[in-house]
Amino acid sequence: MRGAVLHAPGDVRVEDRPDPQIIEPTDAIIRLTATCICGSDLWPYRGVDKPDGPMPMGHEYAGVVEEVGSEVTTVRPGQFVVGSFWASDNTCEICRSGYQCACVQRVLMGTIGTQSQFARIPLADGTLVATPGMPDADLVPSLLAASDVLGTGWFAAVAAEAGPGKTVAVVGDGAVGLCGVLAAKQLGAERIIAMSRHAPRQELARRFGATDIVTERGDDGVAVIKELTNGLGAHSVLEAVGTQESMLQAIRSTRPGGHVGFVGVAHDVALPGDLMFDSLVHLHGGPAPVRRYLPKLIELICDRAIDPGKVFDLTLPLDQAAEGYKAMDERRAIKTLLRP
Amino acid sequence: MRGAVLHAPGDVRVEDRPDPQIIEPTDAIIRLTATCICGSDLWPYRGVDKPDGPMPMGHEYAGVVEEVGSEVTTVRPGQFVVGSFWASDNTCEICRSGYQCACVQRVLMGTIGTQSQFARIPLADGTLVATPGMPDADLVPSLLAASDVLGTGWFAAVAAEAGPGKTVAVVGDGAVGLCGVLAAKQLGAERIIAMSRHAPRQELARRFGATDIVTERGDDGVAVIKELTNGLGAHSVLEAVGTQESMLQAIRSTRPGGHVGFVGVAHDVALPGDLMFDSLVHLHGGPAPVRRYLPKLIELICDRAIDPGKVFDLTLPLDQAAEGYKAMDERRAIKTLLRP
Repeated sequence: MRGAVLHAPGDVRVEDRPDPQIIEPTDAIIRLTATCICGSDLWPYRGVDKPDGPMPMGHEYAGVVEEVGSEVTTVRPGQFVVGSFWASDNTCEICRSGYQCACVQRVLMGTIGTQSQFARIPLADGTLVATPGMPDADLVPSLLAASDVLGTGWFAAVAAEAGPGKTVAVVGDGAVGLCGVLAAKQLGAERIIAMSRHAPRQELARRFGATDIVTERGDDGVAVIKELTNGLGAHSVLEAVGTQESMLQAIRSTRPGGHVGFVGVAHDVALPGDLMFDSLVHLHGGPAPVRRYLPKLIELICDRAIDPGKVFDLTLPLDQAAEGYKAMDERRAIKTLLRP
Repeated sequence: MRGAVLHAPGDVRVEDRPDPQIIEPTDAIIRLTATCICGSDLWPYRGVDKPDGPMPMGHEYAGVVEEVGSEVTTVRPGQFVVGSFWASDNTCEICRSGYQCACVQRVLMGTIGTQSQFARIPLADGTLVATPGMPDADLVPSLLAASDVLGTGWFAAVAAEAGPGKTVAVVGDGAVGLCGVLAAKQLGAERIIAMSRHAPRQELARRFGATDIVTERGDDGVAVIKELTNGLGAHSVLEAVGTQESMLQAIRSTRPGGHVGFVGVAHDVALPGDLMFDSLVHLHGGPAPVRRYLPKLIELICDRAIDPGKVFDLTLPLDQAAEGYKAMDERRAIKTLLRP
């Protein structure tokens, strides 16, 4: 099969890779209908994360089950399925508490690489959620978004306790931040402030439910959020970048007793204890337990209540993955969908 | 009046200070029945925090109202009252959300100094809570504990979401940590693991509700907590020290999706972003909104349902405050009560 492999920073190639096989009786093999490039894929692409050798890329996936192992009972060949970037058994104590991303048996799909024609999905019963019937083609981008960016933005909004009566600020205007806006809206937030200085992203943020756009960042961004909230700060702040600046901006934009939901993969972040202590905010985040939300997200998408697939503003054949990475790296594209 | 003043590290003197006066019409003057020395008073005493000049000490207080300003309506002379180390109006939006410690009008009692015979209490209506009648003398230590250590331990337990079915670990065996044990018990925790290597503190922890004592700390302490929890970590961890080691120990002892409540005043703490991200814990803490809990705590104390005053294992006349500091600094005493 064809699959994307990162050979060195900036050097992604789509090449022949071995067809995946059932290894464990709990595995499934899927044929990808769509896959995509994640903001987090840019960390190794830019050389910030340094893989040891050639690295199969991709951890987002939606497609049709081809084959299942002997112990798989909840999905069957022919079904359209979506899963998260963590494969999980969905039965352990941690899964049952809603943290499938920390399942005691978890497998990181990024180590498998789903920017490819086929993929092996470990722990298929726990990991995969089937759609009700074969979805219309135009729903596929949204279902693919549920695999990571939507589920991650949703977790950020839940972690930040976005909800009725709340003012929510979103730091980061990538696909996750934009999906966080959408999630805050669905969760009933009263006011949603998107922090963005890019016109197309501002437009999508408004479409997803943002009531205010703030272009300032850093100290100035914090000051504007305070101005908009009687000097108190937002109730809920979603952080979807992962840098020291964005984390400090998020914490400082939150009122005492408020909640920060952070999902940007942390890079060189060290949070000062006195700021955390004095700010009196709640902090929660990390790799999102997307699996917790998948049934609900699939339902909302299939009911056409939400259209998170709008974050894909570039669609390319899988063989042109390199151009997809380049477009995202140069911020010409918010998110690239790849057609295997 | 007589009051304790820190002149230099290790140099606390009880000397004549001006009698407090009503300054604002919202002030009250109280005559202290009891005051005490806080673990956090040891930071400047040890020279870790460096005050600019002579510093009146103390922020915990329980006593009888002597005089009230013209706008005070909820307390009157002769009543026995308890307040928190933050004076707060209890009416602003932040107070109403339960974060009186971040009241928009807050005044830090430590800047006033309550290791003294009298004290001015700003925002008396919002700050002070009267007991139902004059309490029996033996309840005074517990009521004084409510002013800070009990309220702070309680906040840690609430922030860590201690409750039925939960395994709770407590890092720190000072008065706050011990009160955290008591709070976890009152909140219904199933199992309470106190981390302590001091026999008298272990004994008090057991009296307050600890089911297990762990003497290891650091990596070894984390390993023991994991062993006791099927390798998963505790649901709830209370941190009551404030150092880098104790914060990391607390986070690493908590299961994914679990809660850390931290109330140790942070000193030279910098939390690695990747640990916070990967750990998937909830973090909440800071200066406790003691005022939120005072009515409930006073009720439990006056009903003799709890006896947090047991944390005072040394009682001295105010004039011997220097010895009280020394005993706590040398860990000969858990907490020193001073009788003005």
